[in-house]
Amino acid sequence: MPRSHGSEIDTLIQLLAKLPGLGPRSARRSTLQLLKKKDSVMKPLADALNMVADKIVICDTCGNIDTHNPCHVCEDTRRDRSLVCVVEDVADLWALDRSETFKGLYHVLGGTLSALDGVGPDELNISPLIDRVETGDVQEVILALNATVDGQTTSHYLAERLASSGVKVTALAHGVPVGGELDYLDDGTLAAALRARGSVS
Amino acid sequence: MPRSHGSEIDTLIQLLAKLPGLGPRSARRSTLQLLKKKDSVMKPLADALNMVADKIVICDTCGNIDTHNPCHVCEDTRRDRSLVCVVEDVADLWALDRSETFKGLYHVLGGTLSALDGVGPDELNISPLIDRVETGDVQEVILALNATVDGQTTSHYLAERLASSGVKVTALAHGVPVGGELDYLDDGTLAAALRARGSVS
Repeated sequence: MPRSHGSEIDTLIQLLAKLPGLGPRSARRSTLQLLKKKDSVMKPLADALNMVADKIVICDTCGNIDTHNPCHVCEDTRRDRSLVCVVEDVADLWALDRSETFKGLYHVLGGTLSALDGVGPDELNISPLIDRVETGDVQEVILALNATVDGQTTSHYLAERLASSGVKVTALAHGVPVGGELDYLDDGTLAAALRARGSVS
Repeated sequence: MPRSHGSEIDTLIQLLAKLPGLGPRSARRSTLQLLKKKDSVMKPLADALNMVADKIVICDTCGNIDTHNPCHVCEDTRRDRSLVCVVEDVADLWALDRSETFKGLYHVLGGTLSALDGVGPDELNISPLIDRVETGDVQEVILALNATVDGQTTSHYLAERLASSGVKVTALAHGVPVGGELDYLDDGTLAAALRARGSVS
């Protein structure tokens, strides 16, 4: 096969193609763009990757990924330490925190219970959650798992495990997404939104 | 604003979001994926970026971006040195070379003539092309510019400039893309394909 560029460039393309959202074609486009912006993007990106890779730690308390341990969330003294929001993944933690509505702490499970994938309670970050709830000053646990079958199964399991601790256990509301059109929503969401309807006057 | 992670991670997200095909959301997803694959992807990616950024050069002969000068194409002795394919961009060079149909050399213009954007012949890599054609052993110049208005204007301009040199000047064929459905093609393409129809028996 004729080669139009060196193997180092191929390696870079193949590594970029592993990022979610980038395939081989966009990895090639990205590589060319990086090559054209060597000093403004390429070098800083390499430095940022190295720096983050060196500093990255998982928070012992909540499971967040950060450059500190405890993480920025856990060490933030302005947060309400009586509220713990349980999420599946770090991505969910970041997403909830971007909404700027929740000012409590988090707990990352690292997945959901799944009989099919052989994930039981011991594979998840559940025992530390129970310990945290029983020993700390937690008053409410908010279950913010995905509204999938596995997410909801895990939610029910956690609610049962937490029942004896005496803390309040709540879950995210189901309903119509803000900006969503009824016509495009599935029946389950519509039924949930109807059941949870609220007074407007 | 509450911060769920350190500023180094933010910097990384912002740099990744500059890649074509990645927005802020997919840059965040990419970052999390990189953090989870620190040793298998993140570190190698940082190393590949640094290595390529250090080695990258533009080929003096053809304008290709590579880790050598002359580039892999120009120093490949199996290629036909009498054929030069003129392309707008390095991405086009790589794309044509992947097709493995063309075994000649390339010449990257670096853009197209554009009255609107104030790009004249002096802004493009045209003089070196003329020199190359007049002094070397080039027998055919293949104009492989995009089938846009600017690309075709540039094609015509180059054909005129090259007319006095005595080399054969050709251009890519217009027609139905392989795998394309007639129903979805524009009139211009259909008309060009009809005009350039060939005998099949």
